[in-house]
Amino acid sequence: MEQETEKFAILRITEEKTAQMEDIVAKEFPLAIILNNQELITLLCSPTKLDYLAIGFLSSEGLIGNKGEIKKILLDERRGVVRVEIGEEREFARELAFKRGCGGGTTFYSAADAASLAKVESETQISVPEVLKLIKDFHYQSQVYRATGGVHSAALCDTKGILLFSEDIGRHNALDKIFGESILRDISTEGSLIITSGRISSEILLKAAKRNIPIIISISAPTDLAVRLAGDLGITLIGFVREKRMNVYTNSWRVKTG
Amino acid sequence: MEQETEKFAILRITEEKTAQMEDIVAKEFPLAIILNNQELITLLCSPTKLDYLAIGFLSSEGLIGNKGEIKKILLDERRGVVRVEIGEEREFARELAFKRGCGGGTTFYSAADAASLAKVESETQISVPEVLKLIKDFHYQSQVYRATGGVHSAALCDTKGILLFSEDIGRHNALDKIFGESILRDISTEGSLIITSGRISSEILLKAAKRNIPIIISISAPTDLAVRLAGDLGITLIGFVREKRMNVYTNSWRVKTG
Repeated sequence: MEQETEKFAILRITEEKTAQMEDIVAKEFPLAIILNNQELITLLCSPTKLDYLAIGFLSSEGLIGNKGEIKKILLDERRGVVRVEIGEEREFARELAFKRGCGGGTTFYSAADAASLAKVESETQISVPEVLKLIKDFHYQSQVYRATGGVHSAALCDTKGILLFSEDIGRHNALDKIFGESILRDISTEGSLIITSGRISSEILLKAAKRNIPIIISISAPTDLAVRLAGDLGITLIGFVREKRMNVYTNSWRVKTG
Repeated sequence: MEQETEKFAILRITEEKTAQMEDIVAKEFPLAIILNNQELITLLCSPTKLDYLAIGFLSSEGLIGNKGEIKKILLDERRGVVRVEIGEEREFARELAFKRGCGGGTTFYSAADAASLAKVESETQISVPEVLKLIKDFHYQSQVYRATGGVHSAALCDTKGILLFSEDIGRHNALDKIFGESILRDISTEGSLIITSGRISSEILLKAAKRNIPIIISISAPTDLAVRLAGDLGITLIGFVREKRMNVYTNSWRVKTG
């Protein structure tokens, strides 16, 4: 955890007193991602699992498909650069800008993305005690969050437990790290669940839908677009999971009650 | 608030029972920003104060300066497009892509940004009860948050009270809305304070620094880069403000204790 945090001398002010103390803060690290010599983006992230982050990001953006396409990953941690080489050659930088609606291009990129996605057909179900047990494990593993309060967590799970876990200052990065790890370590996401500490926006929902993930669990709130997309795409969306309660927004047949 | 929220039928599961009920969810809206006929970006945002959001965004990215430069703002809410016209003509789309490290360009854009900024010299100070009073007002005004739990809030204040307030599903958007409003309504940010519900990353810190804002208050955590930048740029960074406590990370001379 030392790699992800930094100590600072701060002033802690309470009603009773003002005291000098040490506080632990989450690190923020700029990582440039270069695909086949095309510089794509600089992500601000937590400085761990940077290879997983790069691969997860490229996969989320549809720039790479499976592990077989990846010829080389060169990570230069000191300079904050990761170079990925794949066989196919395209205008990746332009494609990315277009998809992200950044620097001109398209307007409703997420809607366009959604239309191309197939419905998630998985028969996976989960019981209420299983959800609550997963969330308990999820909080337990969120070490950097407990130390700093300044990061998001994400996990890939089956109904029995957590398979992959990541933390990052960005909620998208945390998810991309688990997706990148699943690709590089050949762990299938098909029929799995994801947990995120962050809000569920349309972008987060589409990230999961692309991986055929049938159940998304969040500690936090969804947006209306995410709820609509989850409904249309056959995904079970569970939000606001607390110690003993939760909201099921869509496709509630996957949650076994009573 | 109706404009910013949507009702859904959900399943609320608690230990005692499973019940059908209605839940209020924050709306997510794609807004395309077009500057002098150049399509720049599509922001996913809450559908209010869209003109303020566009102007605040363009100002934060350094594409527009003061109100005098703005010739026209045309908002088409139905299609989710805002067109801004200014006198000067440049390659805005390319400039933006470069600055955001998106679609190729630069690596350490925030570091480059920081180097060009002057230290904030304001003599503004604030007392501990004043901070706590501002935070109380801030929570009171966060109506969409209280209804949905799914949005961020931002405010521009002086030591006595809140001047401008916004909510948005994105923490950057919430801040850009108050900055856009300050430009269009001729409210100076010089020597003012900002409050945000969100984490303070380097990007948020630089957004405030560009406006010569001497004090940033957050309900949440800062990153190490934000703390360093705040120290270097002469900004007082206050985090984790709760009902009766707070952490002062940098330039604590602006906080009057005891």
